[in-house]
Amino acid sequence: MKTDFSRLRRMHERGRYDRAAMDAVLDAGYLCHIGYVVDGRPCCTPTLYWRDGDRVYWHGSRASRMLKAQRGAPVCLTVTHVDALVLARSGFHSSARYRSAMLFGRPEMIEDEAAKDALMNGFIDGLWPGRVADIRAATAKELKATSLLTMPIGEGAVKISEGPPGDDEEDYALPIWAGLLPVATVLGPPQPCPRLAEGVPLPDYLRPFAKG
Amino acid sequence: MKTDFSRLRRMHERGRYDRAAMDAVLDAGYLCHIGYVVDGRPCCTPTLYWRDGDRVYWHGSRASRMLKAQRGAPVCLTVTHVDALVLARSGFHSSARYRSAMLFGRPEMIEDEAAKDALMNGFIDGLWPGRVADIRAATAKELKATSLLTMPIGEGAVKISEGPPGDDEEDYALPIWAGLLPVATVLGPPQPCPRLAEGVPLPDYLRPFAKG
Repeated sequence: MKTDFSRLRRMHERGRYDRAAMDAVLDAGYLCHIGYVVDGRPCCTPTLYWRDGDRVYWHGSRASRMLKAQRGAPVCLTVTHVDALVLARSGFHSSARYRSAMLFGRPEMIEDEAAKDALMNGFIDGLWPGRVADIRAATAKELKATSLLTMPIGEGAVKISEGPPGDDEEDYALPIWAGLLPVATVLGPPQPCPRLAEGVPLPDYLRPFAKG
Repeated sequence: MKTDFSRLRRMHERGRYDRAAMDAVLDAGYLCHIGYVVDGRPCCTPTLYWRDGDRVYWHGSRASRMLKAQRGAPVCLTVTHVDALVLARSGFHSSARYRSAMLFGRPEMIEDEAAKDALMNGFIDGLWPGRVADIRAATAKELKATSLLTMPIGEGAVKISEGPPGDDEEDYALPIWAGLLPVATVLGPPQPCPRLAEGVPLPDYLRPFAKG
């Protein structure tokens, strides 16, 4: 099964359309993988991320070796959504349909604690509008213990592979089942914490997930 | 939302249990991200992979710059499954539950065409048992046009984060909804190719996906 990119849009040739495609891929996810180098060796680490305007953000413990290695160093942040597995009439044309965004840059650290708080709250409210008003506010100690990295949406590429199997012309007539096996990510239904305080209702922003 | 690893198992301290955990995470997926270095800069590229015994495999076009850059060079292959988003009573303890496997090594290329064919068929039959018998066999030209990389399951780490929100003790009594928002990947239902030959039935190995 080869990797098949039916469309490739590089950001360094970008127009508005490419940036819109980049934003759409970024906004459809919350998990990225970041490639970076530690002692000359590549590492690829999964982490949560979010976009705010022209930047992406990710965070972790101030003690995180990953964040220390990434700060100011070249990184590659990649977000991938698999939309389908492609069952073609040959193994050669079998592949996957997916959308991916790849961003290159050198992350900076956000030092200002109020800015950190606001940005991280933006991540939470971006996932569940209104959640920040419900939760216990961050303490100064927590903000200090958290590192927040960012880089601009600059150099990068959006790759979108879509459509039915692309077989060799003479293979279409073969009596072989071919098609797509769609892949979807489903969120929900919410599972309450076993220690939930009595009488706390499911918040409105989680209702859309109640049917799973 | 910080990244929270409630369990961390490093393969260099591994016993049978850790290797079983590694295999379970690898076998639950088909998409990995590979970190590698091109001209001194890290890249993080999504690709399909599979495990066969003590090795992982991935492949692509013989012209692929990615595969050329990876061959013999240090890489980090990472597989991540997000199982839930954690809505804790504070942003600080909000995070994700996930399983990830990270493998380090220097990939080799499989040159023998018969071995390549058998290994790639193993990938397809691993996903859909019996599929290889149905599809058109690979041609010599196709095998030549495909590069297959492999590395042993050696140095690496398995990370598993699970369980309900881990809040500060004094926060549990707060009237704040907390819990997990489960994340699941759903495959199916199969979508036939618009050019499917007449009368070709859905194969048995796709029946389990027919309900989506």
